[in-house]
Amino acid sequence: MIDPGSGPRPLGRDTVQVDRSAFASDRVPSPAVATGDRTPDPQADTGSVDVSGVRLRTVEHHLDVVLGAVPQPDPIELAVLDAQGLLCAELVTSELALPAFDQAGLDGYAVRSVDVTAATVEEPVDLAVVGDTEAGSTGAPGISAGLAVRVAVGAMLPAGADVVVPAAWTDQGVARVRVFAALAPGSYVRRVGDDVAPGDVAVQVGTPIGPAQISLLAAVGRERVAVRPRPRISVLSAGDELVDVGTPPAPGRVVDVNSYALAAAARDAGAEAYRAGILPPDRRRMVELIEGQTLRSDVVLIAGTFANAGPDLLQEALDELGGLTFTQVAMHPGPVHAFGKLGPNQVPVICVPGEPVAALVAFEVFVRPAIRLMLGKRQLFRRTVQAVSAQQLLSPLGYRQYLHGQVMRHPDGGYVVEPIGDGDQAMLARMAKANCLIVVDEDVTEVAAGGLVTVMPMLLGG
Amino acid sequence: MIDPGSGPRPLGRDTVQVDRSAFASDRVPSPAVATGDRTPDPQADTGSVDVSGVRLRTVEHHLDVVLGAVPQPDPIELAVLDAQGLLCAELVTSELALPAFDQAGLDGYAVRSVDVTAATVEEPVDLAVVGDTEAGSTGAPGISAGLAVRVAVGAMLPAGADVVVPAAWTDQGVARVRVFAALAPGSYVRRVGDDVAPGDVAVQVGTPIGPAQISLLAAVGRERVAVRPRPRISVLSAGDELVDVGTPPAPGRVVDVNSYALAAAARDAGAEAYRAGILPPDRRRMVELIEGQTLRSDVVLIAGTFANAGPDLLQEALDELGGLTFTQVAMHPGPVHAFGKLGPNQVPVICVPGEPVAALVAFEVFVRPAIRLMLGKRQLFRRTVQAVSAQQLLSPLGYRQYLHGQVMRHPDGGYVVEPIGDGDQAMLARMAKANCLIVVDEDVTEVAAGGLVTVMPMLLGG
Repeated sequence: MIDPGSGPRPLGRDTVQVDRSAFASDRVPSPAVATGDRTPDPQADTGSVDVSGVRLRTVEHHLDVVLGAVPQPDPIELAVLDAQGLLCAELVTSELALPAFDQAGLDGYAVRSVDVTAATVEEPVDLAVVGDTEAGSTGAPGISAGLAVRVAVGAMLPAGADVVVPAAWTDQGVARVRVFAALAPGSYVRRVGDDVAPGDVAVQVGTPIGPAQISLLAAVGRERVAVRPRPRISVLSAGDELVDVGTPPAPGRVVDVNSYALAAAARDAGAEAYRAGILPPDRRRMVELIEGQTLRSDVVLIAGTFANAGPDLLQEALDELGGLTFTQVAMHPGPVHAFGKLGPNQVPVICVPGEPVAALVAFEVFVRPAIRLMLGKRQLFRRTVQAVSAQQLLSPLGYRQYLHGQVMRHPDGGYVVEPIGDGDQAMLARMAKANCLIVVDEDVTEVAAGGLVTVMPMLLGG
Repeated sequence: MIDPGSGPRPLGRDTVQVDRSAFASDRVPSPAVATGDRTPDPQADTGSVDVSGVRLRTVEHHLDVVLGAVPQPDPIELAVLDAQGLLCAELVTSELALPAFDQAGLDGYAVRSVDVTAATVEEPVDLAVVGDTEAGSTGAPGISAGLAVRVAVGAMLPAGADVVVPAAWTDQGVARVRVFAALAPGSYVRRVGDDVAPGDVAVQVGTPIGPAQISLLAAVGRERVAVRPRPRISVLSAGDELVDVGTPPAPGRVVDVNSYALAAAARDAGAEAYRAGILPPDRRRMVELIEGQTLRSDVVLIAGTFANAGPDLLQEALDELGGLTFTQVAMHPGPVHAFGKLGPNQVPVICVPGEPVAALVAFEVFVRPAIRLMLGKRQLFRRTVQAVSAQQLLSPLGYRQYLHGQVMRHPDGGYVVEPIGDGDQAMLARMAKANCLIVVDEDVTEVAAGGLVTVMPMLLGG
């Protein structure tokens, strides 16, 4: 926790944005920055690195802290259609056989295979049609030698028959039918339990429930199924400069976009997101609002700009609820993060930077994997690809840099990526044109044009 | 329209399922199938092919008929968070500049660039700190020569300052600050309108609304936005053999899975789906139920097994509402399809085969693209990839065959695909293991093991 009591607080954010072109000379300074009077981070021994004398937590370590603390909500039972998109939380076995009875696999004529062994186009076998059976009909007549029953796909197989001759391989007769081909016994017949035998597993624990699983659940008679629920996430914005959308901002003020953007991102990641809005500029009401969110949610997400001097209402409010650990994470944009468990239910509270671009990057890196973990998904992270960078990229040493970019397929195969904007965190219009994050590792300070970089495509819903 | 009046009705479905291994001999018959007494299809001249003497509509032609008839719902205005996942239906221009005022691009010290041109680590420039400005603060003091103001990212730039020195390049002093580096004028300053100038387009017509677009809409002050709405789709199941899930099926009966599976698939494709259930076995009530759905929906989807003999209640009910055109489409599984516009609102009604596997294939081929067209999406079809088939595939000549399969990445690059099951349409458990459809073209009857096939990966939500 940062001690707000004595002396100047370290300037928390974005002090490492390196833009070499901004230097009037090319002498890059390496200032020795004092670490200030921060209380030692209890977890500073592991997963941390020193960068220019500043002790930083690695991205992986902060991610471990977050993922290690998010709850595993108990499974809930939902109507099968409401379970769509969620992961099955029970082993669903079938008490039924599917199909439940021997039936025609297509439209045609149910016959005895021995009756048609000699059938050819030149010398068809002629059979008497003694009935016509639809799907759903229960009174199928049995057949004996020389007889056939016209059957529709799904219709119960008449007793005595062991094949269904496809209509196309007959003359489609009504009273008598001529069969043009021999068939092996069992052809075009669906046998009881061919698809699912009683006791078979219909849906495994952990299977995503899609249309095919919903088909199968309905087929085995399930109206409801236990699933991993959507985690409930409350989203709050902190900052004296914020006004709600719809209020024209006075000079120096800006519209709160984070509670909208993060609620949308959380929903896109599979959470049930609740936009709780801007924290009021009053400690008592702040405490009440945050505590109220911890009672209704599995995780509380706060996008905050933290004051760099003087008393900070939000930090005081958080301390009153149990306190969060503030951490400098070796990432850019937005190295200042906080995490802790607050309120009577010890609900995880994740603080991400208040700059909108940094807030969405932090969401991608820490919050989306946490939501997917709560959903029970095995794949927590977006797939990454290697892409050729269309231009030179510069990145601060010791920090993992995330840049918005546009990735496209290269005509010769593979991918090519173009960064969008100059990395400035306030560039919403530019960010809106991005379809990926470019990830530049901590030990890389420069990627030449034409060099390979790691790219994280960000498809919606993906 | 099929004339149900005279003589035997052609056996409609699945008469072309070729499974050569089912033949006792290897003499494959080529029976000349009578086309029966079907009324000529008015569109039979174009987009149709003859297969073994049967006139079939091509998949493309039937798709054209469906896509050409679905309505384009009028745009609706939604709260920005409710617009998530939909396509913007208006050109959103900004009346504001973003940023709205010159501001610090990061935490540091606002200074005059001319004051620090000589600054180096060895010979820092020393300035007096005359203030401290947070984001949201409106009373920034101006500065003149030799002065600095400590600024937080997003804080209004003090009058007179033209750069922000990153805190890391200073000694982070409180009363005085030592600056270690020179900066070009404008460094780390966000100027009014850098991101969005008044009159700039914030969101284009046709842009999918995701978290980044929601950020931008909020930032330019929009609480609501016009979008293409989710098409409303009613899903009905037809078939005397059907019982509702939860009712144990009597012998010969099966549980209705289609209304569940198709509603789930429609929702997954982006529609607002309403499961209207099983059509009642009574013509009057059937007409009422179908007509009722045409009044509440943009499209009605019916999965039906159509009787192959005798009067068909459903067809009579459909005729009473205006009638659908029944068509044999050159595809497998499920060649029997119907389409038309019914009811006072002339709402498109799409009939797909009643076999559950064929119903979901038909959904993929015809209904999903129609939903995406109504949503305004440019990309109507799933991306396809070429994959190596792990085993031999057989396919009926003249029919496009869709087989469920499992596609995976090949360790040496590219993809490999394995068909699931034997193509039987009732195999729900097998279908539930599939992650793709294998598409075998009309003119291909055999794909050797190791040969290339077209594969349509079917990611949920994709």
